[in-house]
Amino acid sequence: MDLILSHAKIVTMQPGDAGYQVSEPVYIGIKDGKIDTISDQPFAITAGIQEINCAEMLITPGLIDCHTHLIYAGNRSHEFEMRQKGASYQEIAQQGGGILSTVTSTRHASEEELVVLALPRLDGLIQSGVTTAEIKSGYGLTLSDELKMLSAAKKLADHRQINIETTLLAAHAIPPEYKNKADAYIDYICDEIIPAVAEQQLASAVDVFCESIGFNLNQTEKVYQCAQRHHLAVKGHTEQLSNLGGTALTAQYQGLSADHIEYLDKTGVQALSESGTVATLLPGAFYFLKETQQPPVELLRKYQVPMAIATDCNPGTSPFSDLTLMMNMACTQFGLTPEEALRGVTCHAAKALGLQDTKGRIISGMDADLTLWNISHPANLSYETGIPRVAGRIVSGNFSAGNASPSLSSISTTSGDGK
Amino acid sequence: MDLILSHAKIVTMQPGDAGYQVSEPVYIGIKDGKIDTISDQPFAITAGIQEINCAEMLITPGLIDCHTHLIYAGNRSHEFEMRQKGASYQEIAQQGGGILSTVTSTRHASEEELVVLALPRLDGLIQSGVTTAEIKSGYGLTLSDELKMLSAAKKLADHRQINIETTLLAAHAIPPEYKNKADAYIDYICDEIIPAVAEQQLASAVDVFCESIGFNLNQTEKVYQCAQRHHLAVKGHTEQLSNLGGTALTAQYQGLSADHIEYLDKTGVQALSESGTVATLLPGAFYFLKETQQPPVELLRKYQVPMAIATDCNPGTSPFSDLTLMMNMACTQFGLTPEEALRGVTCHAAKALGLQDTKGRIISGMDADLTLWNISHPANLSYETGIPRVAGRIVSGNFSAGNASPSLSSISTTSGDGK
Ligand SMILES: [Zn+2]
Ligand SMILES: [Zn+2]
Repeated sequence: MDLILSHAKIVTMQPGDAGYQVSEPVYIGIKDGKIDTISDQPFAITAGIQEINCAEMLITPGLIDCHTHLIYAGNRSHEFEMRQKGASYQEIAQQGGGILSTVTSTRHASEEELVVLALPRLDGLIQSGVTTAEIKSGYGLTLSDELKMLSAAKKLADHRQINIETTLLAAHAIPPEYKNKADAYIDYICDEIIPAVAEQQLASAVDVFCESIGFNLNQTEKVYQCAQRHHLAVKGHTEQLSNLGGTALTAQYQGLSADHIEYLDKTGVQALSESGTVATLLPGAFYFLKETQQPPVELLRKYQVPMAIATDCNPGTSPFSDLTLMMNMACTQFGLTPEEALRGVTCHAAKALGLQDTKGRIISGMDADLTLWNISHPANLSYETGIPRVAGRIVSGNFSAGNASPSLSSISTTSGDGK
Repeated sequence: MDLILSHAKIVTMQPGDAGYQVSEPVYIGIKDGKIDTISDQPFAITAGIQEINCAEMLITPGLIDCHTHLIYAGNRSHEFEMRQKGASYQEIAQQGGGILSTVTSTRHASEEELVVLALPRLDGLIQSGVTTAEIKSGYGLTLSDELKMLSAAKKLADHRQINIETTLLAAHAIPPEYKNKADAYIDYICDEIIPAVAEQQLASAVDVFCESIGFNLNQTEKVYQCAQRHHLAVKGHTEQLSNLGGTALTAQYQGLSADHIEYLDKTGVQALSESGTVATLLPGAFYFLKETQQPPVELLRKYQVPMAIATDCNPGTSPFSDLTLMMNMACTQFGLTPEEALRGVTCHAAKALGLQDTKGRIISGMDADLTLWNISHPANLSYETGIPRVAGRIVSGNFSAGNASPSLSSISTTSGDGK
């Protein structure tokens, strides 16, 4: 073993009721970045093994934020201020606001600048217990700028203990150069961007904003087909503002997830159920945009569609970097239970990224990605907000201290070879 | 001088448009816990003076959370979970839930235990930039337990760099011993609790939950009269669930603030305006209870009633310890501007505590309570949530590092007498 967690009360998030129970104290042995052994008996400690006494904590799978737009330049607080003072969307657009202002700023930023600008947002996620974050491109909208964004996203893992998953979202908005030429832009995405991203292995999935103000079904399908030719998974921003059928299309292409889905109907839910696609709820955007159309939670339950929850962290519609706040919002706004909320940021979020076999649950053989909390019951994560309560995180077997007070600023290493 | 802030871009929160402008870099000299001098010229630095280079930061008055119930024992996440799973309030009450469960737990806790339990919540406020927090009693409901709560609240200042203001809220709920005897409980408050609190100087104000499910106008007035006889200020939880007239009554007694006020009408707003009473908005409770009745923000603006914003941090209706999240909620839910939100947690919050002459603005002579932010414009505080961005806080002239990365973990002290 490399690391041993002793007296660990764990919430495994295995399927079924037992997966949400707080276990009796166990001993977890971690080796080569994986959960090796979970035992009710202590391990023999040999020289050089690190040990963490987890007696006062609760351990969950490391939280997974499966939908973010963390990489961007520029700041739209001025636009927010204009809006609160009564400016119309038109006035804001005339003053250079809206998504295209983020595109302009992002195009002007270097890859290194994008990394530096994203770090505070990433630190927000980390302080809410996140060990894996998905990050989308979509503010470059040219080949080189989309590659730059994805590369910057991956570089974040050089600066923090975090797993980064990247998604190409070139089909996020129509860039100014392609105004009124959406089909030509889709061709550019399929002919140039997706092949380059696949070849450079800069993303594992391709996403499309399928909406009346985004891309239509036909355009979305072209992108999905091209992604699959290049062996990339697909997922969609679907049914956020209207019921266009994008979710069913995503299911048809065995998409990993359909995200937002406030306007999804029964047919769409059934499609998700049949394809095993995850329904990702984004309560921060719902809240910030003051939406009233509720996602079909009852239907999703009835058809046993796994629900994930994510921050959607982005400068226009969800400027939030706290994943446990999103758990509270999913409960408060959408009526989820704390158990559903925790599944939504662990096992179901893992599935939304195609990582269900390696992340999101605490069982031997899985990646050693764990969050150590200064709480006694997992319902607390959805209930209280703003309390610094991460005692520490373990990412691929490596420990880092959290923001809680007291945090685990150090762990004991048995004397010996000083590994 | 004891401490000098150099290259400080400040937002003074003085009245008028200029108070919300970001200043050109200035130099702030702090002496004996007060803002001594603000100058556009550097000071002569003599030996032993501490200096902070604030070039990359923005400085606001230290944030003030003017309405919290931070001191309590017990945890109601189980109750939250039951509610989300569909349990009725009646079922929850039958299982011992609701406010009386917090009363029972708080009565059983020692003063020291109450301090330890409140520290994580206080750390949440601190990490959102708070330098002054008001804390109410109201979960003891006996003389000794109310005194214990207020004493525990004051002790928090021994553990963290924070100003604590305490408020007696014995009239929070009818304790089980006084079931169906509310008038007798009010007599007990007036005859026993208020005199003891006044004499021991454990609170500077007295608060009442004036509501159909709390105390009626007549009972509220009795408490206000008694408080004034003992030279304590008054304030009320008023017009939260119905329009009972508690706000006008609070204004009639020159109350410091009327809090919640979703159901306040024009007459009530006019009363606040005439008495100079602050209207404290509590958007966390509005959000958590899924209320729909909006506070009369337009009327409050029209009659120039100062609006404060607070967390109302409590286990039943607002389990939130992040004051900047409340700023976002006040903007998003109630339509406040970021300027109004910042005034609501600085100058107007100070006024809600009767501290407008010493706190809440950056001018010479005031207390040196400041928050140093890793942001460029104050609108950011209401816009983005979850980013660790407090570089540091100064409380009564004493600096402590914040949670931002990079934070100001140390400040330079000129060599010399090593003061
Ligand atoms: Zn999105
Ligand atoms: Zn309250």
